[in-house]
Amino acid sequence: MPSPAKLSLNTATVREQWNLKECIDGCVRHGIGGIAPWRDKLHEAGVEESARIIKDTDLSVTGLCRGGWYTAEGSLTDNVLDENKRAVDEAAQIGAACLVMVVGGLSKGSRNIHAARQLVEDGLGHTLDFARQIKVPIAIEPLHPMYAGDRACVNTMRQALDICDALDPEGTGIIGVACDVYHVWWDPELSSQIKRAGKSRLLAFHVCDWLVPTNDLLVDRGMMGDGVIDIRGIRQEVEAAGFNGLNEVEIFSAKNWWQRDPDEVLETIKDRGCKAT
Amino acid sequence: MPSPAKLSLNTATVREQWNLKECIDGCVRHGIGGIAPWRDKLHEAGVEESARIIKDTDLSVTGLCRGGWYTAEGSLTDNVLDENKRAVDEAAQIGAACLVMVVGGLSKGSRNIHAARQLVEDGLGHTLDFARQIKVPIAIEPLHPMYAGDRACVNTMRQALDICDALDPEGTGIIGVACDVYHVWWDPELSSQIKRAGKSRLLAFHVCDWLVPTNDLLVDRGMMGDGVIDIRGIRQEVEAAGFNGLNEVEIFSAKNWWQRDPDEVLETIKDRGCKAT
Repeated sequence: MPSPAKLSLNTATVREQWNLKECIDGCVRHGIGGIAPWRDKLHEAGVEESARIIKDTDLSVTGLCRGGWYTAEGSLTDNVLDENKRAVDEAAQIGAACLVMVVGGLSKGSRNIHAARQLVEDGLGHTLDFARQIKVPIAIEPLHPMYAGDRACVNTMRQALDICDALDPEGTGIIGVACDVYHVWWDPELSSQIKRAGKSRLLAFHVCDWLVPTNDLLVDRGMMGDGVIDIRGIRQEVEAAGFNGLNEVEIFSAKNWWQRDPDEVLETIKDRGCKAT
Repeated sequence: MPSPAKLSLNTATVREQWNLKECIDGCVRHGIGGIAPWRDKLHEAGVEESARIIKDTDLSVTGLCRGGWYTAEGSLTDNVLDENKRAVDEAAQIGAACLVMVVGGLSKGSRNIHAARQLVEDGLGHTLDFARQIKVPIAIEPLHPMYAGDRACVNTMRQALDICDALDPEGTGIIGVACDVYHVWWDPELSSQIKRAGKSRLLAFHVCDWLVPTNDLLVDRGMMGDGVIDIRGIRQEVEAAGFNGLNEVEIFSAKNWWQRDPDEVLETIKDRGCKAT
């Protein structure tokens, strides 16, 4: 049962209501311990200015969302690789604990998921070379298999950790996973792969809930406690494996939470984030 | 590139347009080689009468949909187990190659997916005892992880095959898997698990396509060729592993194929089933 100071607000949770400055102020006002900006919010506010504002608070930056999309142009173009370098740079500027990677789905017109996965691994290798230089950890986020086609062809913890082992066999902590309960709760191998990941690979922990029924593949995530995920059980497993970071709340909810007063959303997050997780 | 005779019509594909008799006539008229009824269609037409009509044709019965739902009442009640026995009986009556099992998701009010999975394995064991007596193969259908909450907590081929190995270590063919490309195409372990399954465990092969975007979690499946699944590649893998049954076409499509003239649907299935798979 984490205290509010153990929670972090992913800006996607109130993305329709607040800009980054409002998110930061909201976190401070509510005693929430961390923030994880999306890059659109960061660019809108200006990276340097945002870094300055965040550093004036005690907020941890649990991650920057997001790099990746290696498959977007069908090959590892300069455009794709440079964009990822910029993302690493921005993560460094705001002192993010990691850069979260949504790796990309199938390339346009392709049905070859093996090729997509190879492209992703190659692309992550390039980004990691740069990330090592400026010491920004890269967190691969395995996305739910329902996003394999259009968002991320890395869909399980095992797969993400296999890539980590290939690119960083020493387990230095420079590459690891962002474990989001929404994406992985169903996985029969979840417990064993969390143990396998251990402290050095568990770079972020995201929470929300899986609603039954779920009415949209993308923007119908639930508030913790409103769905069927054993969030507390998974949190205890990642903590037993050595993770001691914040619980980052990331809820895409077009018809519910994005429609509400954002202070009510943060109050609910504190209540549920403490009781249900 | 299978011929129409290598295709089977799952009645769900035209469930809004045709009853079972019309499906059977349609298959015969179009030269489609097999049929796989859902139990609601079978009951509507009468099991004995349906068995008689099917036997008057040359149609193979590639499966009966469906048994399972072991988690529906929170424990293995007589109701749940008897219903599965009835399903096995009906599969025998119509000469189905297998009874397809959708095993059930979380029990109502539960967040314990481990418990659900144990219940399912226990339930399958009971049904298998009966199925062995009357020699009806049981095909566990791993469902896409997006159904883990409310339909099936068996979500990968590996998981289904682990259950098969536990219940039938000799690999007699009395229990195996129904491999539906829609549910498993994303799985990084798909190729290795198809090989592991081999001829004795590959009891059914279902095709349709994954649309990008997918607008509904349940009833927005695509016609072969309209989505991103490498259906041909997967078919070649199951055939290389020893499967030599029909390709069963099962498309839930509320806004497209369920709205069309069913003869047009069957024509399209033949065209796509031959070209795209």
